[in-house]
Amino acid sequence: MDDIRDRAVALDAADPLASFRDRFVPAHDVVAYFDGNSLGRPPRATAEMLAAFATEQWGGRLIRGWDEGWVELPTTVGDELAAAVLGAAPGQTVVADSTSVNLFKVLHAACELRPDRDQIVVDTTNFPTDRYLVEGVAAQRGMTVRWLEPDVIEHVTPDGLAEVVGEGTAVVVLSHVDYRSGTILDVPGITRQVHAAGGLVIWDLCHSAGVLPIALDADDVDFAVGCTYKYLNAGPGAPAFLYVAAQHLADVAQPIPGWFSAADLFAMADAYTAAPDIRRMLSGTPNVVGILAAREGARLVGEAGIDAVRAKSVLLTELLLELVDRLDLTVVSPRDADRRGSHVTIQVPDAAGVAKRLGERGVIPDVRRPDLLRLGLSPLSTSFTEVHDGWAVLAEVLDIAH
Amino acid sequence: MDDIRDRAVALDAADPLASFRDRFVPAHDVVAYFDGNSLGRPPRATAEMLAAFATEQWGGRLIRGWDEGWVELPTTVGDELAAAVLGAAPGQTVVADSTSVNLFKVLHAACELRPDRDQIVVDTTNFPTDRYLVEGVAAQRGMTVRWLEPDVIEHVTPDGLAEVVGEGTAVVVLSHVDYRSGTILDVPGITRQVHAAGGLVIWDLCHSAGVLPIALDADDVDFAVGCTYKYLNAGPGAPAFLYVAAQHLADVAQPIPGWFSAADLFAMADAYTAAPDIRRMLSGTPNVVGILAAREGARLVGEAGIDAVRAKSVLLTELLLELVDRLDLTVVSPRDADRRGSHVTIQVPDAAGVAKRLGERGVIPDVRRPDLLRLGLSPLSTSFTEVHDGWAVLAEVLDIAH
Repeated sequence: MDDIRDRAVALDAADPLASFRDRFVPAHDVVAYFDGNSLGRPPRATAEMLAAFATEQWGGRLIRGWDEGWVELPTTVGDELAAAVLGAAPGQTVVADSTSVNLFKVLHAACELRPDRDQIVVDTTNFPTDRYLVEGVAAQRGMTVRWLEPDVIEHVTPDGLAEVVGEGTAVVVLSHVDYRSGTILDVPGITRQVHAAGGLVIWDLCHSAGVLPIALDADDVDFAVGCTYKYLNAGPGAPAFLYVAAQHLADVAQPIPGWFSAADLFAMADAYTAAPDIRRMLSGTPNVVGILAAREGARLVGEAGIDAVRAKSVLLTELLLELVDRLDLTVVSPRDADRRGSHVTIQVPDAAGVAKRLGERGVIPDVRRPDLLRLGLSPLSTSFTEVHDGWAVLAEVLDIAH
Repeated sequence: MDDIRDRAVALDAADPLASFRDRFVPAHDVVAYFDGNSLGRPPRATAEMLAAFATEQWGGRLIRGWDEGWVELPTTVGDELAAAVLGAAPGQTVVADSTSVNLFKVLHAACELRPDRDQIVVDTTNFPTDRYLVEGVAAQRGMTVRWLEPDVIEHVTPDGLAEVVGEGTAVVVLSHVDYRSGTILDVPGITRQVHAAGGLVIWDLCHSAGVLPIALDADDVDFAVGCTYKYLNAGPGAPAFLYVAAQHLADVAQPIPGWFSAADLFAMADAYTAAPDIRRMLSGTPNVVGILAAREGARLVGEAGIDAVRAKSVLLTELLLELVDRLDLTVVSPRDADRRGSHVTIQVPDAAGVAKRLGERGVIPDVRRPDLLRLGLSPLSTSFTEVHDGWAVLAEVLDIAH
């Protein structure tokens, strides 16, 4: 055991969030889980909720459950998520559908609010769903896509943004944290710059929600979407969230007006009238058990406090960077902690093969073809010792003396 | 105890599906559950799956689960559902998203296949989501809605259809079973008539999937959607299904091209290429636990056999009609069993008030404002004695001697 492992053990001993590890279901064959940024681990509370759901809530209340709170779950849990994670006042957030469907809705909604503008801006480094949907929606509306082509580390700069954002810009779609490099984008600064040009912003918060402080209201963000299955630990494919700033709610229209978006759900009215509030962004019947899982995730983060989560995240990635540097690997993530989210990406040949060998030793990273390993560190469920021990296996697998 | 209760007991004794009642989680305070057509009861197998999911699949496999079958779940369970319930060969069905989102997708997809036609046909009696989405999609595409205005019992007739379907018809959207009256529409006949006019059909199967024989392939249906939380017992807001006939798969395009619809999910490619198969109808990350619940529901129906389920459904609704007729109530459902789905609708003043009083006595119907009570009979979980006993409480609540 070298001295850096002693340091990791000491960091754990001093970690104010250390006890949160016991709030998660243990995974017995895992030495180090470095993929909480793809799929967060299950909280024990969620396991208990799932275990009781069919016998108690669903089977016990049956259809009555809808009148006893299920109907309002997208907004009640939306508000809880807004308070704990998004920096948003109540009444602007719903939990329902997938990130892709939600992004589709807010893309159309944003463009509807800027009918005299014909350009959507997105970056070439964005997650596929974001790029595909921007191209799809632009084609559907006869609009043009303007591509930002940022460096993956330096990412979107004021000058770069100024080159593509202008009087034709309806909306700009960016991710708060780059899914490959982990680079944090400047939400307030970019939002201000887009607004100054008369455009609107949609922020994809998939890689920041639950791990980075977010201030949607204070930063004057127009729209946001994100998933709940990464740092919010709501389970594979759990419902996503969608935020619309209060100032837009009265005017906003979305393209999938299912019955849950209607003013009076049970009127079964002849003519459609959109709900006056954020419910107008819903579509079909929301997935109850998935939203309840998102609630558990939001509550865990709320209990820990997002500032404490972020502080531990920085310490975790600092430790990992120090360790990775001992192996002389190329790091494709910002060195500046203020610009780095909660994952560190390294370049290795045959990343998939390395990941396979790591997996055989109980270390689970995420692979981005062809040569990137993303090492995600989820502060509530990851210990400093786990970071060290996973790294030690990586060094052995790569056959690098450390 | 009058002699008709003895007859109900005898029907239960002779019921080849009687043992399936024990496959569901018991609801202790319920005398009669007449709302399986809104929310089916939880199968024990689903309760067990949910109880184990967080600790075993999600928590045990973590991100590896996606490589070990989760990615394919929308199509593997889609195929299982197709075989057990939809009368469809593999490769044409996915389970994902909500019925509303799926209907939105197939509406656009169908219209894309008929670019020279500018009308969508829907009936005024259809479920709100269907009507709202037809109006929404028509507006988005600059198309016109042609309204069928059928009688709720006789419903869509060849003559009625001929009045609105013609050379301008791109697509006709109808529900297999009317959500209020329970009337069965003639899927093969209407489909043939629409095809003869050059149009396409979308069948909403929410109120028939799992309780009526369906033959999508044999009936030459183009598109179908439906939910899994009624007679498929997958839980509140569980993922819905979507069917595209094989003949359309090569040409079909849908409006929400999220990453799960791409040819190579993990290529994270620069340019979007739709999957060559039914996966092209997907959008975002599918909800794993919800799809697993839909699988349990499809398996239960498959094990029982849809013909046996339908045979019991007819006997259940016949018994209920005989009982209801003793109370001289107005029935808003077909008298002809061949034209009646698995719910019987009766007219009573202040239906909500009656439902409340029924609920206090452990009898749970469904209310459609202002004066309809829907009594849904789910063959796998409902006994004949339950029908009798629920009816007896209804008679007392309505203060009608029986």
